[in-house]
Amino acid sequence: MTNNAVILLSGGLDSATCLAIAKAAGYTCYCLSVDYGQRHCTELGAAVKVAASLGAAEHKIIKLDLSAIGGSALTDDTIEVPETMAEGIPVTYVPARNTIMLSIALGWAEVLGADHIFAGVNAVDYSGYPDCRPEFIAAFEQLANLATKAAVEGRAIKIETPLIQLSKADIIRLGTKLGVDYSQTVSCYQADKQGQACARCDSCKIRQQGFADAGTPDPTAYQ
Amino acid sequence: MTNNAVILLSGGLDSATCLAIAKAAGYTCYCLSVDYGQRHCTELGAAVKVAASLGAAEHKIIKLDLSAIGGSALTDDTIEVPETMAEGIPVTYVPARNTIMLSIALGWAEVLGADHIFAGVNAVDYSGYPDCRPEFIAAFEQLANLATKAAVEGRAIKIETPLIQLSKADIIRLGTKLGVDYSQTVSCYQADKQGQACARCDSCKIRQQGFADAGTPDPTAYQ
Repeated sequence: MTNNAVILLSGGLDSATCLAIAKAAGYTCYCLSVDYGQRHCTELGAAVKVAASLGAAEHKIIKLDLSAIGGSALTDDTIEVPETMAEGIPVTYVPARNTIMLSIALGWAEVLGADHIFAGVNAVDYSGYPDCRPEFIAAFEQLANLATKAAVEGRAIKIETPLIQLSKADIIRLGTKLGVDYSQTVSCYQADKQGQACARCDSCKIRQQGFADAGTPDPTAYQ
Repeated sequence: MTNNAVILLSGGLDSATCLAIAKAAGYTCYCLSVDYGQRHCTELGAAVKVAASLGAAEHKIIKLDLSAIGGSALTDDTIEVPETMAEGIPVTYVPARNTIMLSIALGWAEVLGADHIFAGVNAVDYSGYPDCRPEFIAAFEQLANLATKAAVEGRAIKIETPLIQLSKADIIRLGTKLGVDYSQTVSCYQADKQGQACARCDSCKIRQQGFADAGTPDPTAYQ
């Protein structure tokens, strides 16, 4: 038994809050970011700052070029990031992204002897993403408990998604209480090289509304 | 509805047979290999030959550096590849490898509109690997059917593992009938740069025994 946990850290607002929650719960936090060829690669720089300021034990950035597969506005330059909220599953959805990231986290968790994986998925604001739903997380946990040597040896893996039912405003209130510096985080799908946000994409709009609803000043740097 | 299938192709004997089966069943085959930092990277060269000679529609090699995570003799240079068969889960097990590869295949399948993913996993010879068991595959299929936009839209994904209950000899007999050129495949965990096998590791021993049991001449080039 260790107190290790793997935290999926994108560099956005949600995953930073998730790390703060894991840290406050007493876990030794191993942060994992995936450089998957995302447009908004400045979020990886944000992840480095967030991991350091919240006291991660280690932070790994693993490269996996999902742009080779395409199919998303976030990895395919020929698909535009939309600036109006659409019905249904948005074009910013990256095929199987959370499945892939959780799988890599599972591999690292096994090496570390970590029984907990934290992911900042949220079913409220991003209800359009199939891989942010509670039933998806439950199915991944079931898979994880068959997939590994640890599982065969009887050690259960738990997928922790403490934000899954929270509103953006709730997440911001909680993170602020736990000392998250949201000025370090980048949510924008088309942030510039300095990490400054566009204020126009879905992700920016949801974030702005979240700060407004939480009654907290928005520290985001806009272009 | 398409007739597309994604085939996980390592360059080994099993996945080559799996591709031949999918092809014979009439699928348009999109082959996926993962360059995960494996010692035996000559198997990727083998995958290129196999995909070409069996008429794959496309072959993608995606890079994901699992050696950053370590924990296996196949990705960590400090762990020796054993030359005696051990009880239990071998040190050549790569943490969460099949979960990760199936996840990437799932992402590509979604982009291609493919409803079938073929994986040459085998529960007989590699019973020591937890992620080669039928219950693992069933759990992954369940996950896949919650994870994707396609699933939300009602399109079911099927994970096909036609070799899962076959012996190595049965696999070789079937592949030979379907025209697989096994001299192109590399199974050895420590093959040299020319793809020549060591004849000493577990994987070599299982392969040699398979050809012997099938009564088929072994076309493998040994060091």
